Amino acid sequence: MEILKKYNDDLQAYLAKAVSHKEPRQLYDPIKYILSLGGKRIRPALTLMVCDFFGTDYKKAMSAALAVELFHNFSLIHDDIMDNAPLRRGKRTVHEKWDVNTAILSGDAMLILAYQFFENYEPKMFQELAKLFGETALQVCEGQQHDMDFETRDDVTLVEYIQMIDHKTAVLLGAAMQMGAIVAAAAESDKEKIYQFGRNLGIAFQLQDDYLDVFGNPETFGKQVGGDIISNKKTFLYIMAVGQGTLTQAEELDHLFSINPKDPTDKILTVKEIFLNSGAAEATRKEIEKYSNHAYSLLDGINISEEKKEMFREFGHNLMQRSV
Amino acid sequence: MEILKKYNDDLQAYLAKAVSHKEPRQLYDPIKYILSLGGKRIRPALTLMVCDFFGTDYKKAMSAALAVELFHNFSLIHDDIMDNAPLRRGKRTVHEKWDVNTAILSGDAMLILAYQFFENYEPKMFQELAKLFGETALQVCEGQQHDMDFETRDDVTLVEYIQMIDHKTAVLLGAAMQMGAIVAAAAESDKEKIYQFGRNLGIAFQLQDDYLDVFGNPETFGKQVGGDIISNKKTFLYIMAVGQGTLTQAEELDHLFSINPKDPTDKILTVKEIFLNSGAAEATRKEIEKYSNHAYSLLDGINISEEKKEMFREFGHNLMQRSV
Repeated sequence: MEILKKYNDDLQAYLAKAVSHKEPRQLYDPIKYILSLGGKRIRPALTLMVCDFFGTDYKKAMSAALAVELFHNFSLIHDDIMDNAPLRRGKRTVHEKWDVNTAILSGDAMLILAYQFFENYEPKMFQELAKLFGETALQVCEGQQHDMDFETRDDVTLVEYIQMIDHKTAVLLGAAMQMGAIVAAAAESDKEKIYQFGRNLGIAFQLQDDYLDVFGNPETFGKQVGGDIISNKKTFLYIMAVGQGTLTQAEELDHLFSINPKDPTDKILTVKEIFLNSGAAEATRKEIEKYSNHAYSLLDGINISEEKKEMFREFGHNLMQRSV
Repeated sequence: MEILKKYNDDLQAYLAKAVSHKEPRQLYDPIKYILSLGGKRIRPALTLMVCDFFGTDYKKAMSAALAVELFHNFSLIHDDIMDNAPLRRGKRTVHEKWDVNTAILSGDAMLILAYQFFENYEPKMFQELAKLFGETALQVCEGQQHDMDFETRDDVTLVEYIQMIDHKTAVLLGAAMQMGAIVAAAAESDKEKIYQFGRNLGIAFQLQDDYLDVFGNPETFGKQVGGDIISNKKTFLYIMAVGQGTLTQAEELDHLFSINPKDPTDKILTVKEIFLNSGAAEATRKEIEKYSNHAYSLLDGINISEEKKEMFREFGHNLMQRSV
């Protein structure tokens, strides 16, 4: 993303030497491996950007940014085991390249390494960052657990679904941004607002991800369009359609999300129709708008220049406009 | 243990309400389950005892003690997955009672919860405790990795073996004790000495555990005597016997540790003989003595009353005299 480019080169350089530990190799090689797979590095770049926008040398936020990126990658290693995922960013996942035991233990070490990066701050800032980190990390675990629980439940409410994506995805975006504000010693109210900005944008982003999975352009959407439908994943669109649609539509969806046809083309088409006709598609778009508008409205009250606010808005638009 | 009894009741009460989180149940129930399985709670009791002996109300060290116990139990959950262990303290392990995914994620949450207990201290103490905790936790992961690596290596040296048990077991004993000293705001040199006291005693304890596995009294040793020989585990005794014994003894050991006879009685007897005749048994006893004597010698320089030092020695003797 253009606006984050400024930070990405620095970030890449620091990340490359973030884990200097060598022995035992079986423990540290997988950590270096997953960090070498790339990724957009949006979260740590946000930490640096927020610190920068609040008027502090962004390099001071580097350790916090690295902590966020290490935590994110720790969660990828363990989530990939749980999801039995063979690939991550087109390369073999850690438990595939090594084995499950290695992926468990290297993930554990990575979570501890993430915490250690905060040690570079003086005690008061260390505590503030580590507290936010611990609370956020626990929420991410809770979100992951809810996501797994939802697979076997058919009574998930919209509120529960939003809370799940909030915990699994959005709070870490909010925390990444707030950490930048903490390092910049921003006012308490600004720290809170930038956190909520990131968090609301994160929810909007995740809802849009669900939406694009069904209605996205196959040529620009990064993942397989229809993937959630094929794997019977009950996203916001599904829950909304079951709740807003007719009894017939609900029953048809219920049936379609219990089968796994060899050729899913017809299933995808029918589900798409129901999502549209039930009003779920439109309702989801409105929900996305609600969360992103709320995010932008929070910017108004933050004590930074209008120019910086505009850059935050630009970031938000860039984030939301990818691959529609 | 009599000397720790004073702290155990309090500890038990705090531990029972340590994890008040309820939802999602699938995440927090396994944490409450493993904490309910009991155990001797030696590590957290040591944190309280050291704080007490350094003249500070031991309840001030309760949060640090709980962090230590939660970390220890986190490592048990994940180690049990890696070791494919069906039972823990006579009850089903978490991955057996639930499943591997649950055990991974609940373990992760438990590690984060452990860190959170340090938040109850003021920033400077928080940072000191969390730093020690992070360093120790990483060493425990490294020790576990080395232990797994050693299974497929036949060139493990005595130094490597000692380092493995140091990391896997001893440093956490040392850290548990040092945390008590940190909360009591003991002098830097006393903090270091009590850490090394716990660590050296931990190495002695683990070596003795290896020794008793072969030469212990079946009626008082908690585990199956000969268990390490049956499972071909190359402990200190094995490495010492291969190094100190004759070529014939080394070759016989090498062979015996490659077979899995249905009735292991003869194998155990022969290995025992070699451990004795090669001088490995005596050398191991001497090594145990070396580490425990070093531990006791460290006590001399600590700035506490002779009476308290005597109680530390008593604790050491109690720890080392169990089930010989």
